[in-house]
Amino acid sequence: MSPASAPEADASHCLEPRWVLPMDPGSAVLEGHAVVLVGPRIAAVLPRAEARARFPGAARVSLPSHAVLPGLINLHTHAAMALLRGMADDLPLATWLADHIWPAEGRLMSDAFVHDGTLLAAAEMLRGGVTCFHDMYFFPDAAARAARTAGIRAVLGLVVLEFPTPYASDAAAYLARGREVQAALADDPLIATAVAPHAPYTVGDGSFRAACELADAHGLPLHVHLHETEREIQDSLDAHGRRPLARLDALGAVGPRLIAAHGVHLTDAEMDLLAERGAHVAHCPAANLKLASGLAPVAALRARGVNVGIGTDGAASNNRLDMLSELRLTALLAKGVAGRADALPAHEVLAMATCDAARALGLGSRIGALRAGLDADVIAVDLGASELQPCYDPVSHLVYAAGREHVTHVWVRGRPVVAGGRLQTIDPGDLTERAETWRRRVRP
Amino acid sequence: MSPASAPEADASHCLEPRWVLPMDPGSAVLEGHAVVLVGPRIAAVLPRAEARARFPGAARVSLPSHAVLPGLINLHTHAAMALLRGMADDLPLATWLADHIWPAEGRLMSDAFVHDGTLLAAAEMLRGGVTCFHDMYFFPDAAARAARTAGIRAVLGLVVLEFPTPYASDAAAYLARGREVQAALADDPLIATAVAPHAPYTVGDGSFRAACELADAHGLPLHVHLHETEREIQDSLDAHGRRPLARLDALGAVGPRLIAAHGVHLTDAEMDLLAERGAHVAHCPAANLKLASGLAPVAALRARGVNVGIGTDGAASNNRLDMLSELRLTALLAKGVAGRADALPAHEVLAMATCDAARALGLGSRIGALRAGLDADVIAVDLGASELQPCYDPVSHLVYAAGREHVTHVWVRGRPVVAGGRLQTIDPGDLTERAETWRRRVRP
Repeated sequence: MSPASAPEADASHCLEPRWVLPMDPGSAVLEGHAVVLVGPRIAAVLPRAEARARFPGAARVSLPSHAVLPGLINLHTHAAMALLRGMADDLPLATWLADHIWPAEGRLMSDAFVHDGTLLAAAEMLRGGVTCFHDMYFFPDAAARAARTAGIRAVLGLVVLEFPTPYASDAAAYLARGREVQAALADDPLIATAVAPHAPYTVGDGSFRAACELADAHGLPLHVHLHETEREIQDSLDAHGRRPLARLDALGAVGPRLIAAHGVHLTDAEMDLLAERGAHVAHCPAANLKLASGLAPVAALRARGVNVGIGTDGAASNNRLDMLSELRLTALLAKGVAGRADALPAHEVLAMATCDAARALGLGSRIGALRAGLDADVIAVDLGASELQPCYDPVSHLVYAAGREHVTHVWVRGRPVVAGGRLQTIDPGDLTERAETWRRRVRP
Repeated sequence: MSPASAPEADASHCLEPRWVLPMDPGSAVLEGHAVVLVGPRIAAVLPRAEARARFPGAARVSLPSHAVLPGLINLHTHAAMALLRGMADDLPLATWLADHIWPAEGRLMSDAFVHDGTLLAAAEMLRGGVTCFHDMYFFPDAAARAARTAGIRAVLGLVVLEFPTPYASDAAAYLARGREVQAALADDPLIATAVAPHAPYTVGDGSFRAACELADAHGLPLHVHLHETEREIQDSLDAHGRRPLARLDALGAVGPRLIAAHGVHLTDAEMDLLAERGAHVAHCPAANLKLASGLAPVAALRARGVNVGIGTDGAASNNRLDMLSELRLTALLAKGVAGRADALPAHEVLAMATCDAARALGLGSRIGALRAGLDADVIAVDLGASELQPCYDPVSHLVYAAGREHVTHVWVRGRPVVAGGRLQTIDPGDLTERAETWRRRVRP
């Protein structure tokens, strides 16, 4: 089913919140305004009386204590790993991967695992106000089916590795499967693709070159784990005689397509290079802490003009796919790392998770802001709960005080996928059953 | 009204959760068990069938997807500052205090401000599973009234400062007011007191000595901000020729009564001293980051045997009074700071917020664990939501995946103060009105 043919596509809604946060560069918080959605697009952001006059047929959605803003974008995740949420914690990275994650994946990886895991992840993300996720995992075709069912936008990384898994046997096979998925999704209005050579330590030079060619040929993002750990950098020095970023730059991979996931260990010169090349970073604060990878220099990156979005990473190393929690951690941690309480104010963090992330994905002209003509990926967050009182500034509250439980409404391409705090597209009972079935297989 | 005379005092409840986490040293997670509350006390933790046989009259509370554990203890806060939540963010500490917090407090500080602010804070804390908070603020008698209305346990710091506020004119006046409040609350089963000389930079040697005498005379904790910022340490070197901890130690203030709030900047020798003296630290990870105070050496403190609890600090520098969020941040940040993913596992963090915090407050024989004879300060957290699936380990989920929205039931001294996720003691509409009234006064 194409979302364009969904029954809601012609409906129109006039959202009447207390606050509108357009997240357009330079835009202020608006009061007394409405956001009008017609079919899959935003028709207008305008004063409420004007909206009612111009769109008399639109169904009014009263949101008296709510902020309405663009949907949050999760710029780096492995959605299907939701099925491995909390299966192994508090372990050194090498033990965690080699003794727990890889064996479980090796035994269970399949189209069905990825479908069910992505469905579980999509439900969690939508209910938490995430309308788009940038994924990297096996069986992206299965992830696409799940995303479509859930009604969430996805940019699915077509993963490339050198070693065999149940998904593909070698880099050429990964690339071949990736090309097939890309072709099948090329005109999809909801699901897009990226090319995802996994990491410098799992992908050889030739495969990186082939991945770049594929990305260039179709204008896709290049999704790579980069400078996540000190060990990755040391291994690269040992194997290639240079650091991973320098190696990728020599291969032509560092440019405006590149979304470097993690970007924890970066010299000043490397940050300058990312800025010069127009590359993007997907900052994953919770996972970087949980795996003890380190403290990313987010304020320093942004000061140099590097575009930085925010990601949850997979639920196996987080253990939640909760962007509001990640925004808060981003804002707090940046201050601690920079040693300045005025580092990374709340409004900048909100921009990172909306308009900046959209730009990283090459979707800046379609999502990430509330502006007439953009796709209607919109969320409402109720700031009326007593734990959010008093409210001096809705932007501060969204970043520092609110939680995902305060998200009440979510529209993706105009489709109401969450309403009254409830997911409209998937039955939670069915999700729990699927998760429980996989839990028994993961740990019999 | 004394809680002992509350109508619920003779009721008995048989809680039948999926998991019981007793948080007794060395205790494991129990399945198939029940927790029986009779009046204000825990009567038994035992296999479910046995519970039903021994307590046939107890009202059964079915908690099929829940974990039941001791209530969380917020070891450092300024509850009434909830009224200043988010009024000024992203500012350097000096600007934040001098241009925003102090002027607002100076204009508005009163019995009514503290009562309403504490009521707002108590509601937020109870709904998030906090059954006890260790406070430091003006007008502790007003805070006591609010805590009693809300039905939350409190240990109220009797604040001591050298400078005048609407609460008291000088250190002698603060101490005199403190003695009055202590005498009035001496036999209260729900509300206790601590002596709270605010900080080394706001309290002189003589006042510290008097505060210690008061604490010794009544066996009270000594609640002090200590080694929170580098500037505090430099100022002490300039004014006293030694670091604050050394100065307090010379005054006899460093011992098993001391709860040092923050404890961010500590040398190895200072950590050894805290361990030798049996002093406690209240770790405040979110506030330490938000005010850019620094990264506290929690794993190192614990490795030396220092008892560390967790606090939210006030909502003006957090901006939430959410202990589950603070637990998660504690576990994540300790790994990042120690550079080891196995630093501070989930079960240790849960102990810090329950049994360890109770011990810091001198209440280890009354709260902090589920054991027959202890006060019935108990919470239930529903781990059945789809965003918490699958569940391999309830302890991991409580620390890394669950949020305060999953807390469904809270009992304090056996009184059901939260049931079905709803506060039973205060009307949220009334709270919102009070908060809104104060908001208008804070920022007219």
